[in-house]
Amino acid sequence: MDFFSIRRVSEAQRIFLEACPRGPLGVEEVDLEEAHGRVLAEDAVSPGPLPGFDRSSVDGYAVRAEDTFGASEGLPAYLRVVDRIPMGKAPERPLGPGECAQIATGGMLPPGADAVVMVEHTEELGPDEIGVLRPVSPGENVIRRDEDCPAGGTVVPRGRVLRAQELALLAHAGITRVQVARRPRVAILSTGDELVPPGETPGPGQIRESNSYAVRALVRELGGEPFYLGIAPDQEAAIRERLEEGLRRGDVVVVSGGSSVGARDLVAGLIQNLGKPGVLVHGVRLKPGKPTILALVDGKPVVGLPGHPVSAQVVFGLFVEPLLRQLLGLPPFPAFAAGVRARMAKNVASATGRVDVIRVALVERDGEYWAEPILGKSGLISTLTRAHGVVVVPEEKEGILAGEVVEVRLA
Amino acid sequence: MDFFSIRRVSEAQRIFLEACPRGPLGVEEVDLEEAHGRVLAEDAVSPGPLPGFDRSSVDGYAVRAEDTFGASEGLPAYLRVVDRIPMGKAPERPLGPGECAQIATGGMLPPGADAVVMVEHTEELGPDEIGVLRPVSPGENVIRRDEDCPAGGTVVPRGRVLRAQELALLAHAGITRVQVARRPRVAILSTGDELVPPGETPGPGQIRESNSYAVRALVRELGGEPFYLGIAPDQEAAIRERLEEGLRRGDVVVVSGGSSVGARDLVAGLIQNLGKPGVLVHGVRLKPGKPTILALVDGKPVVGLPGHPVSAQVVFGLFVEPLLRQLLGLPPFPAFAAGVRARMAKNVASATGRVDVIRVALVERDGEYWAEPILGKSGLISTLTRAHGVVVVPEEKEGILAGEVVEVRLA
Repeated sequence: MDFFSIRRVSEAQRIFLEACPRGPLGVEEVDLEEAHGRVLAEDAVSPGPLPGFDRSSVDGYAVRAEDTFGASEGLPAYLRVVDRIPMGKAPERPLGPGECAQIATGGMLPPGADAVVMVEHTEELGPDEIGVLRPVSPGENVIRRDEDCPAGGTVVPRGRVLRAQELALLAHAGITRVQVARRPRVAILSTGDELVPPGETPGPGQIRESNSYAVRALVRELGGEPFYLGIAPDQEAAIRERLEEGLRRGDVVVVSGGSSVGARDLVAGLIQNLGKPGVLVHGVRLKPGKPTILALVDGKPVVGLPGHPVSAQVVFGLFVEPLLRQLLGLPPFPAFAAGVRARMAKNVASATGRVDVIRVALVERDGEYWAEPILGKSGLISTLTRAHGVVVVPEEKEGILAGEVVEVRLA
Repeated sequence: MDFFSIRRVSEAQRIFLEACPRGPLGVEEVDLEEAHGRVLAEDAVSPGPLPGFDRSSVDGYAVRAEDTFGASEGLPAYLRVVDRIPMGKAPERPLGPGECAQIATGGMLPPGADAVVMVEHTEELGPDEIGVLRPVSPGENVIRRDEDCPAGGTVVPRGRVLRAQELALLAHAGITRVQVARRPRVAILSTGDELVPPGETPGPGQIRESNSYAVRALVRELGGEPFYLGIAPDQEAAIRERLEEGLRRGDVVVVSGGSSVGARDLVAGLIQNLGKPGVLVHGVRLKPGKPTILALVDGKPVVGLPGHPVSAQVVFGLFVEPLLRQLLGLPPFPAFAAGVRARMAKNVASATGRVDVIRVALVERDGEYWAEPILGKSGLISTLTRAHGVVVVPEEKEGILAGEVVEVRLA
């Protein structure tokens, strides 16, 4: 595959994501209780106005605002209490001039009332009379009947990830079944003559396969549905058979490949011959993660992760994560990504034009966070478990100086 | 409940969390594939060294390092290739002086070899002879047999949340079943005469219950196991019965209460009489979220959330989230919390001694993020769905000036 030149990360992302399908791949209806974290695939429209009636947002007295104009501690407005409005019921009678009704937070305003006076701003003068000590303006302390959403209004637009608050708003609107993007099915294949399943005892020169556990967890976290194709030895027929199964059953195939040049070239060559257009990128200017394969086989994305566990996780974050977001109908890169601000504890070198992803442990010192680079070999999984997160050195930077402020992405 | 004074948030957190049990509440064994996001309850110990044998971390030639000392482009070290080591197998013969063996990334070093020369630093001189163009030191390009973990070493310590990389390391060590903290069971009760289930059509003055959907989602997100006790009307007997059921079946009870003073006092009074020590805090200096109830009933935490949806979510984050972390055996507050740095778009006032939680929408302007406060009523759920996250104004601050840099917690 020598005819492929090594690409910059940004260029590789662009080439790959532009070639890949845009989601959602399909729409399915789920119960609201199962919808947390799913991506809404169709606008959710409220059948009626929300909350549905003028509600008090405080404990106090529903009034006609004009009756309170000019009221003060020295000269209260005197109002007759003609009703005590029960929660969850319609008020029994409308308010006339000079009348008010006791109301609790969430209570329904009677016809004629257009504001609520907080109980703290009234004085009880008799069993059925109060003095209002401050004026209220029309609408004050009232949630209008359609203030949360008008009838026919969109409560949650499609393409939105359903967080706790979206679920609450949908329930509030009476929408208990929602249309969400189908989860992309991600086939995961491990290749390598040295691999045995974690339940088996490795012989000499063998190790237990472990990348698939991380990849499955990350796929689930991002809203995909992983399935495992098992371990294939470094043989053309065996790998081809599994790749074909993955392409048949999945929307995406992720191959956690061998780290040796021979194993990588075997996988790249096979992918190239499985369908069109084949391999789009083979090799990126990324450390760790150079031997990445990005391909599209008859409309289905295929990603070859490097075999080194650290590299595999880095490449997953830079290429598979935006791919899965795109297949769900989200923008491939989130508008805002949260990080922890810290100072780099040591100088870190990086080549211009190359993206470096540095694992770091965070420590607090003198009221500030410091990011200590973990500089172990990328074949060591334990360097990943010791890390709180990563610092990405972008293409245009030639490294980071000790003391420089960086954003640590927790991972 | 007037005998309770309003507490500061920090004081309320301390009183409540110190009184509550420390987790884990129990230990259960799960398959590694089900363990993502769970909290490890016992140290995971590797039965053998990892990776288990000296492995090459590059493609090249396994050598005796001393044979390469002094090698250079001008004066290469000449070595005889005596073996080509297959992946996943033990090398057939040890290396003698002047000998080397071709090896791929991940291959097992033969006895006698203590370093690997990268193929890029060699030249082929004949079918079985190479020239080494640079010296290597002992251990170079080799992952030692116990470099990821020694035999009997802890691969993942208890109390650690299992992320993708921890799963990979456990699989690597052959640990396919893990001991994790039992999920705290969280009983959720909604109270209010005005509430109907989301599947029903509200009558006049009624609204659909929605807080429980948000609370269930948040509990699950944090590793708890929510169960719903349904809606109780504002009647002592009905609420008491459900609270007792929640205490019997759950480890924690969360009551999403009425927003009116009467409804709140009813719930607080009931909790106070259910067991010892009863209500610990009733009212916190928090906006929104003042009418919070924090209680402990015969060893089981009970939290009364305000009925307003926005307040409920804020109080959940400040009190239920650290509680659930503590019950899982984690520190109640994470060491590092990721946020998005932004400038406040408007002045926001706050009283000293009070915590204000401001919902904000993030917008990008001139290459910077700006946090636009969403200043709607806390009874409006749609203000939560329009927010990207929140800014917390701490007790000691008297507000935030426009232009000031803040951390936005995505939520």
